[in-house]
Amino acid sequence: MYELTAEVERLVAESGVQQGLVNIFNRHTSSSLVLMENADPTACRDLEAYFDRLVPEDLTYFQHTCEGPDDMPSHIRMVLTRSSETVPVRDGRMMLGTWQGLFLFEHRRARHNREIVVTVHG
Amino acid sequence: MYELTAEVERLVAESGVQQGLVNIFNRHTSSSLVLMENADPTACRDLEAYFDRLVPEDLTYFQHTCEGPDDMPSHIRMVLTRSSETVPVRDGRMMLGTWQGLFLFEHRRARHNREIVVTVHG
Amino acid sequence: MYELTAEVERLVAESGVQQGLVNIFNRHTSSSLVLMENADPTACRDLEAYFDRLVPEDLTYFQHTCEGPDDMPSHIRMVLTRSSETVPVRDGRMMLGTWQGLFLFEHRRARHNREIVVTVHG
Repeated sequence: MYELTAEVERLVAESGVQQGLVNIFNRHTSSSLVLMENADPTACRDLEAYFDRLVPEDLTYFQHTCEGPDDMPSHIRMVLTRSSETVPVRDGRMMLGTWQGLFLFEHRRARHNREIVVTVHG
Repeated sequence: MYELTAEVERLVAESGVQQGLVNIFNRHTSSSLVLMENADPTACRDLEAYFDRLVPEDLTYFQHTCEGPDDMPSHIRMVLTRSSETVPVRDGRMMLGTWQGLFLFEHRRARHNREIVVTVHG
Repeated sequence: MYELTAEVERLVAESGVQQGLVNIFNRHTSSSLVLMENADPTACRDLEAYFDRLVPEDLTYFQHTCEGPDDMPSHIRMVLTRSSETVPVRDGRMMLGTWQGLFLFEHRRARHNREIVVTVHG
């Protein structure tokens, strides 16, 4: 889990939009974009541990394994979560709750570059 | 599961927007906002029973348990569902299907106040 | 899984919107709308196989079974995935990643007509 809240907040401020919505979109099928508790780091670690068990790598019926054992689980974990979030903007800021942070949830083991598209509209 | 359809429909009508989208956003990480079958109450009860089993409270590897056994499961159930919905508006009304209702899916046992932000744009 | 990418791309082009967002909304509670890997057909088949096991049809505690054993699982699979996607539009096209395709994920066995609402805004 990689937190993106501060970066997106900066883009919202730069846009000059005071009231509207911001859409944050992940252009990949093996990672997710989610809102999550951002105060206690163990919450994200427990989430990762849970997903490791919910969608294990060694399911024998998987056929889509060309890129290794974490290939198919990464797509399933993405479908079980989200590819984008849409967050209200008020007074030039995201109207997140006290404990809400925006995270990229990476599902692959190897290093990947990820492209996130942020669209602010008033 | 608490249905919010009528309240959001009222806000959409008051906005005067005839054609566009409405975004309904939940500012919390231990409850969700989902569309669900709203005709037969047993559908929501079965959904709750399923989630109780899918993300049980007694998983021994959880570390984020400061607020009790329903703390970490509430965050996971939120990530497995959604924090917001975006629904098309036509003729001043949400264009929901016949069986679709909008629900707050509460994941904590204790009573909580929940803030939902509704943004209508034409 | 039924791919809708080309049809939605055509509607975006027809709208004339160059920069903005497109919301694709599924008006049903027993099917989903998801982004998924669209290059290798086995990825979608593995996803379907996984969901068949994650939400099986023979759970004895289900009460909402009026429409048959695939009734309640279809609602749960919908809640575990998504009812809509919002995708950025740039230069008159959806800004999907290389491997991203838009799919209707049908959860019922019998044939159903499905209504999808596409809203493009600049």
